[in-house]
Amino acid sequence: MLPEVPMPARGVTVWFTGLPGSGKSTLARRLAARLTARGVRHEVLDGDAVRTSLSRDLGFSRQDRDSNVARIGFVCGLLTRNDIVAVAAAVAPYARARDALKREIRDFLEIHVATPAEACEALDPTGRWAAARRGELPSFTGVDDPYEEPLAPDLRLDLSVIDLEEAVRKVEALLEDRGYLPHDPG
Amino acid sequence: MLPEVPMPARGVTVWFTGLPGSGKSTLARRLAARLTARGVRHEVLDGDAVRTSLSRDLGFSRQDRDSNVARIGFVCGLLTRNDIVAVAAAVAPYARARDALKREIRDFLEIHVATPAEACEALDPTGRWAAARRGELPSFTGVDDPYEEPLAPDLRLDLSVIDLEEAVRKVEALLEDRGYLPHDPG
Repeated sequence: MLPEVPMPARGVTVWFTGLPGSGKSTLARRLAARLTARGVRHEVLDGDAVRTSLSRDLGFSRQDRDSNVARIGFVCGLLTRNDIVAVAAAVAPYARARDALKREIRDFLEIHVATPAEACEALDPTGRWAAARRGELPSFTGVDDPYEEPLAPDLRLDLSVIDLEEAVRKVEALLEDRGYLPHDPG
Repeated sequence: MLPEVPMPARGVTVWFTGLPGSGKSTLARRLAARLTARGVRHEVLDGDAVRTSLSRDLGFSRQDRDSNVARIGFVCGLLTRNDIVAVAAAVAPYARARDALKREIRDFLEIHVATPAEACEALDPTGRWAAARRGELPSFTGVDDPYEEPLAPDLRLDLSVIDLEEAVRKVEALLEDRGYLPHDPG
């Protein structure tokens, strides 16, 4: 997204990782709206959305999941080094794949959307958890595929405990504290 | 590449299309050096280079070639709408795939590197044409795979007729004429 008057920001990748239904895409969209309001150049890379473009060919095997994360990461890296805030929302279940991105991109904030599985499954607005329980979605992270929790994320957000607006404020504060955004005068 | 003092430029995708060995990558690198010297933000997406990252899984079938072009195009589109000059060097042999990118990205310059096949094959610094003639590189564009020439490219450059520096000057002039770069005072 190209704001009318782009504000200088330091490029960074903000990666929301977590279980399906934990709130990653919602957080990414809300953060994007805030960045638009603050005049900060950014792009959202949504793990599900890119499966119709960048990763059309990929399934949900471990190898395909790693490829999807690597491709999104490649794009985030290009954007980041051009001072654009890249906001990724993708399960990225494997610690090794996430760690590879951190090493490569460096300006990389790992945000664990730590909404517990029970809360994700109870809400389940898209019905994916229910479908996975019925065996209609094989290799579903949290049901029959593993999620390796980040051990030391830059931020951990549990949307069953805090609300969306508070969560986004915490992300903005993190970006400010790390020098990626100027402190919000508002 | 992030220059020290980034100069405002309008985002655009400059796509060098042409036969293997026609000079696409060389042109892209030389243009990138000029953009660096002029302080213009840019990225080079090289069709061969991305086969180790973005397109690691792809071969050279028509479908895989189209996927490679589409993925590079996806990235070029993101960069372009963020005012970064995306320089792509990729055979992109099929007119339909190129036309799809033009429609999608809009700020898109198609540059046909029209060095004739005989000249590409005579030079052949990487030995790929010779390998293809020996049957060691199947689906090689220009030998046993088609190249659909652009009918109305924004620029046509035949490096068997003009030298590299003149070719790059023509690309810079095109970018200036179309309003993507300020006229070079130099």
